[in-house]
Amino acid sequence: MRRVVGAPRALLFDVFGTCVDWRSSVIAEGEALAARLGLEGVDWAAVADAWRARYQPQLETVRSGARPWTTLDVLHREALDQVLADFALGAVPEADRADFNLVWHRLAPWPDTVEGLRLLKRRYIIAPNSNGHIALVLNLSKRAGLPWDAIVGAEIARAYKPAPEAYLRNVEAIGLSPPEVMMVAAHNGDLVAAGACGLRTAFVPRPTEHGLGQTTDLRPDHGVELVASDFIDLARQLGAER
Amino acid sequence: MRRVVGAPRALLFDVFGTCVDWRSSVIAEGEALAARLGLEGVDWAAVADAWRARYQPQLETVRSGARPWTTLDVLHREALDQVLADFALGAVPEADRADFNLVWHRLAPWPDTVEGLRLLKRRYIIAPNSNGHIALVLNLSKRAGLPWDAIVGAEIARAYKPAPEAYLRNVEAIGLSPPEVMMVAAHNGDLVAAGACGLRTAFVPRPTEHGLGQTTDLRPDHGVELVASDFIDLARQLGAER
Repeated sequence: MRRVVGAPRALLFDVFGTCVDWRSSVIAEGEALAARLGLEGVDWAAVADAWRARYQPQLETVRSGARPWTTLDVLHREALDQVLADFALGAVPEADRADFNLVWHRLAPWPDTVEGLRLLKRRYIIAPNSNGHIALVLNLSKRAGLPWDAIVGAEIARAYKPAPEAYLRNVEAIGLSPPEVMMVAAHNGDLVAAGACGLRTAFVPRPTEHGLGQTTDLRPDHGVELVASDFIDLARQLGAER
Repeated sequence: MRRVVGAPRALLFDVFGTCVDWRSSVIAEGEALAARLGLEGVDWAAVADAWRARYQPQLETVRSGARPWTTLDVLHREALDQVLADFALGAVPEADRADFNLVWHRLAPWPDTVEGLRLLKRRYIIAPNSNGHIALVLNLSKRAGLPWDAIVGAEIARAYKPAPEAYLRNVEAIGLSPPEVMMVAAHNGDLVAAGACGLRTAFVPRPTEHGLGQTTDLRPDHGVELVASDFIDLARQLGAER
């Protein structure tokens, strides 16, 4: 775990997977929905994974320009309807679908997230740089107690990560230049793209983001500047410990 | 001081004048600049007023479409150069001008602002809806300790208040509808415009924003829903007291 020489002025955070455990939250709300509706034998982990698997191909339709800017509420709902059909859950009523779709506004943080952000906030500007739109990240953060200084992200750039604009426009929005900003993520692809834009990079592994059998993003790629075991370790390495 | 029936879900705040005392901050930094450069006999209150007097005409060039979207850093600097010339301060060096221009990123809050916002944040989403761009409001808020849940405003709308889009786009950005949101301002013009867009309105007078001889915005116009003497009184009236 290397110490960073010359601290950044701001830290931008990926949210889904890095700050919050989306998969456990989706599973928990799926199970609650099943209990409410009397649905039995549904593998909600498989539902969660199938729902998330549609995410990158959906974003690609926006990134490629095939589709105009569209928020995740719309993309999540389109994917949810397809996934429910695939899992023979087509009878789930509209009101329940609309509510379940908003589980992405209610994701739970990892155990170290809130404390780590509080420590980092004392010394750095901290802001999410998520593909989630402002309202989604705001609702999630208000509920979880994520103490951001500002919320930037895809909606401000009108571009989804890993498009360069999704980094560069948000760095500009907080009034800094890329070398003054460190992108923090549990995903190597996010960091490689941020690094290519001149941002500094920190990898925080979330080895159970995809469940116990996760095989991806367990280790940093070459070129990541800093590796921390969690946000509290990140704070310590960046001189923002208690 | 009427009590609000049916609380809003979010409060949007004007910043310059409502949350922060821009005039005293500009005067204080002007006096420090004068001491540093050995300038004597400058009426910094008059400089502050002249600088601010150029603000609305500048915004109008953007609102009218005569000029494309331009941030306040650029507009403030153009106005500063003109004001310094008018006050026979044309010899102030470039580095000092550039730094003095950023006084708008360093404005001090009114005495009740931080405590009032902290109280209100417990119960409501709170966000600035300023004509200041994100970086300006972020820097000002980080320094003053304004505990926003998110930063929205003119940069997101690409429109300056009191244009309707400057309210409606920001209400949309936080995922709500106008009747769910209350605009808080020390300026009747801001509230009349917000009310015309369907937002709820709260007037908090700042009777010394323009100095001791202030004659405007001492009282609310007809049609303002709620009047509070300061942010702590606002919290009390909105059920977010200690």
